Amino acid sequence: MSSVQIGVFGATGAVGRTLIKQLSAQAPWLASRGVDCGVIAVANSSKMALGLSSRSWPEYDFLLQKGEPLDSSRFLASLKPQGPQQHSLIFDCTASEEIAKMYLGALNLGVHIITPNKRLTSAPLDEYQAVQQAQYYQSDGNLRPHGQAKRVLYEAAVGAGLPIITTLQDALNTGDEIYSIQGILSGTLSHLFNEFGPGQSFAQLVKDAKEEGYTEPDPREDLCGMDVARKVLTLARECGVLLELDDVQVETLVPNKMPGNMTVADFLDNFSKYDKDILERVERAAASSCVLRYIGQVDVKQKTCSVALQEFPCDHAFAQLSGTDNIVSFHTRRYSPQPLTIRGPGAGLEVTAAGVFGDFLRLLRCLGYHV
Amino acid sequence: MSSVQIGVFGATGAVGRTLIKQLSAQAPWLASRGVDCGVIAVANSSKMALGLSSRSWPEYDFLLQKGEPLDSSRFLASLKPQGPQQHSLIFDCTASEEIAKMYLGALNLGVHIITPNKRLTSAPLDEYQAVQQAQYYQSDGNLRPHGQAKRVLYEAAVGAGLPIITTLQDALNTGDEIYSIQGILSGTLSHLFNEFGPGQSFAQLVKDAKEEGYTEPDPREDLCGMDVARKVLTLARECGVLLELDDVQVETLVPNKMPGNMTVADFLDNFSKYDKDILERVERAAASSCVLRYIGQVDVKQKTCSVALQEFPCDHAFAQLSGTDNIVSFHTRRYSPQPLTIRGPGAGLEVTAAGVFGDFLRLLRCLGYHV
Ligand SMILES: NC(=O)c1ccc[n+]([C@@H]2O[C@H](COP(=O)([O-])OP(=O)(O)OC[C@H]3O[C@@H](n4cnc5c(N)ncnc54)[C@H](OP(=O)(O)O)[C@@H]3O)[C@@H](O)[C@H]2O)c1
Ligand SMILES: NC(=O)c1ccc[n+]([C@@H]2O[C@H](COP(=O)([O-])OP(=O)(O)OC[C@H]3O[C@@H](n4cnc5c(N)ncnc54)[C@H](OP(=O)(O)O)[C@@H]3O)[C@@H](O)[C@H]2O)c1
Repeated sequence: MSSVQIGVFGATGAVGRTLIKQLSAQAPWLASRGVDCGVIAVANSSKMALGLSSRSWPEYDFLLQKGEPLDSSRFLASLKPQGPQQHSLIFDCTASEEIAKMYLGALNLGVHIITPNKRLTSAPLDEYQAVQQAQYYQSDGNLRPHGQAKRVLYEAAVGAGLPIITTLQDALNTGDEIYSIQGILSGTLSHLFNEFGPGQSFAQLVKDAKEEGYTEPDPREDLCGMDVARKVLTLARECGVLLELDDVQVETLVPNKMPGNMTVADFLDNFSKYDKDILERVERAAASSCVLRYIGQVDVKQKTCSVALQEFPCDHAFAQLSGTDNIVSFHTRRYSPQPLTIRGPGAGLEVTAAGVFGDFLRLLRCLGYHV
Repeated sequence: MSSVQIGVFGATGAVGRTLIKQLSAQAPWLASRGVDCGVIAVANSSKMALGLSSRSWPEYDFLLQKGEPLDSSRFLASLKPQGPQQHSLIFDCTASEEIAKMYLGALNLGVHIITPNKRLTSAPLDEYQAVQQAQYYQSDGNLRPHGQAKRVLYEAAVGAGLPIITTLQDALNTGDEIYSIQGILSGTLSHLFNEFGPGQSFAQLVKDAKEEGYTEPDPREDLCGMDVARKVLTLARECGVLLELDDVQVETLVPNKMPGNMTVADFLDNFSKYDKDILERVERAAASSCVLRYIGQVDVKQKTCSVALQEFPCDHAFAQLSGTDNIVSFHTRRYSPQPLTIRGPGAGLEVTAAGVFGDFLRLLRCLGYHV
């Protein structure tokens, strides 16, 4: 009988916990389709628990109570499939570069990877390409045997639960030609610019958003644009635009004049002295019936990526988002002149975990399961 | 060595021809990933050609020149897999009910089905359920062995190349709860209502649309709403709303007072005498800054389906389509209050064939291929 063993990095994190809950809730349905699976290893940044029962769905506090010190190599080794009927995978629910560096070793050990973490897809190009290649090719350069691909799936790395990556991969693999991709790719920045208008204090909006839990603990991580840049790079590389993260032209929203070493509290207290530029821009935009949006863009023909504030007329699809909506438009040979557009909440625990879970179903199908 | 043998019903039709061209263009890429495939059988409504070379991509006129009279049973039998390494599938690129009735037999012979044809998903419920069941269960009621699911895939039946069905299935299978689905699901009717406004003749718009090739040969097939009803029913059944086609409440746009037996030419010539109602409605809508849209809707909680003209304010996403855009919004437990929305051209040969091709890639992955 074939079985699937799961390891979870980031098991005590927001997405990791939610994912385990969702999987556990669907476990009866999975079992009814012949999927024998469970979480046998969990870890956070300091602790791990290995060798769990092969049908367990450990809850949040399990690891904290039962964990031993983290040793990622032992974690990985414990997942090595024993024989052709045993499959294993890692859910990487961290934002860690260190864990992303383990993917290549995992694939070559026969362990699949599913992740919402952008650290692989925005890693240095050679690391990225090595992992992509290792899905289908052995280290000697030959195609892996039929049925033996080792997958790395990352649908939730862009747009959380929205079907962005799979839609793009389908378009490319069926022979469409992508001209450009444009989108609002940060839930936080979507929220900020959906609220922001003439006469408002941008600094105050950021402060409020932080208090309401919409931003990273340090809002500058959102405002600097690097999260969006990583997503743009992820999309660009799918299209064969093989750039490095440094090549993405990023317009940061953190004022250059503010010292980089300020504490979060100091930053928030002083931001309002520096947000005049953006107030002027939103007023200029409003004067011509436009709004400001923070846009990530891939121009496939020009082989460029950018992240920047842009103006959009009020009747443009990008002007009409609410909440933390993301939106992505694909302009392609087939989708022309009208693009293919996907829109909806692009952050949040439930939708992000569901995006990861969707990848798990895709993997299970690759492994011959009836899902 | 494993191989994939393809049969195409509707091979001389618009979608069928385009699909074969797209597959043939991607054949080198497929081969590079270890997929050994080709079209070994083609048919249209009168002719078929069987036993073609297993790596062929026959062009449009091949069948017309080389065909023998169609015998669907022989066609199907010629695709029966010979041994576990041989896989076969039918692309049903017809709109035929007769062909859809063959799916159950095909699955039980070991032949997968991929189709843009809505005749299965809007068939009488018992036929629909029998085919769905046969994907995963043998005729004795036991689960098919691991790796032996026989798939029926129909992403292109709703929204053509837009990822509607897979997105819905992912949501359901990962445990989301669908509250309702709302959409503009006909490229033809989208086009008509994107153009239609106060002071215009709806009858003239229909006439023009027919001349430009936007409608079925008989535009009443679009206007009667049954195509949309079939799509709505397809979506509803995915959500477990197990209705019959007759249960869908359909507001037809063909005036009741026009005799049903009119020729197409007579219909078009006389339509303008009967389009006063709809002109009044579009004017009433405009008076309150709204537009008319022809909407398909599934209310999962109420277990109802409907197709009807509705008013939308000008800043609603449904009010801002162009061309033959389709749009679908999923309101779910996870996607709430903001829905997940997918928009783009929902008809056209290239995008429809690409939707079918996308299903082929999904099937290949299920069969262990590295795509
Ligand atoms: N939240 C969202 O809405 C959303 C949306 C899309 C994508 N994502 C992505 O999902 C991932 C997880 O996000 P989250 O919101 O769940 O973050 P989080 O709540 O901060 O959780 C991160 C988890 O990763 C663990 N971790 C960090 N570094 C580690 C290391 N080196 N080794 C092992 N474990 C490590 C943390 O352990 P400790 O608790 O010990 O630090 C924690 O369990 C991130 O890549 C994020 O970008 C999130
Ligand atoms: N066109 C689009 O944009 C679009 C979009 C979404 C979905 N679809 C769906 O795609 C399917 C094909 O559409 P299409 O536009 O390609 O139609 P089409 O051009 O009319 O082609 C239909 C094909 O099916 C063949 N056929 C009809 N009845 C048959 C039967 N009983 N047995 C065998 N072959 C039969 C026809 O053969 P003859 O030539 O001998 O009649 C022709 O080859 C339909 O289900 C349609 O709803 C189309």
